[in-house]
Amino acid sequence: MGEEPGKRRTTVLINGQNYVISGKADVSHIHEVANFVDQKMKEMRKINPYLDKTQLAVLTAVNISDEYLRLRRQMEQERKKRDGEN
Amino acid sequence: MGEEPGKRRTTVLINGQNYVISGKADVSHIHEVANFVDQKMKEMRKINPYLDKTQLAVLTAVNISDEYLRLRRQMEQERKKRDGEN
Repeated sequence: MGEEPGKRRTTVLINGQNYVISGKADVSHIHEVANFVDQKMKEMRKINPYLDKTQLAVLTAVNISDEYLRLRRQMEQERKKRDGEN
Repeated sequence: MGEEPGKRRTTVLINGQNYVISGKADVSHIHEVANFVDQKMKEMRKINPYLDKTQLAVLTAVNISDEYLRLRRQMEQERKKRDGEN
């Protein structure tokens, strides 16, 4: 996803601003992702109401990456454990 | 992670700006997460050099969330499959 040229373009609203997302993903998946980010930014703003928009977005990216990297590690461990069993 | 009070505080550099991350996580995990976000922002800036800092951070959060939600779905499917086998 992102702004690659020549792909399907979908406009989404995140933190009050429109973004054009282009990629091969389903429109429903793109909206799910955008809603997820919007929700995470809302939660972050509640905890830290004095952050500017950039800080809010960066710290939201940090929080999502924290969850992502933990999940990836957990998945690798589950796979290793499963491979050990077989 | 984020800016919760009363937790260990670690300063990280993301896209040329310092952020204080507080939480119970290991300092090494916090640095891994910060480096991951910084790297993703660099990749996004290469593709889209004309984005402002907020747009760059939001679209980076979108890309990471895309990966995260795909991984989460994949993990759920693997678990379901495994539970079906047992």
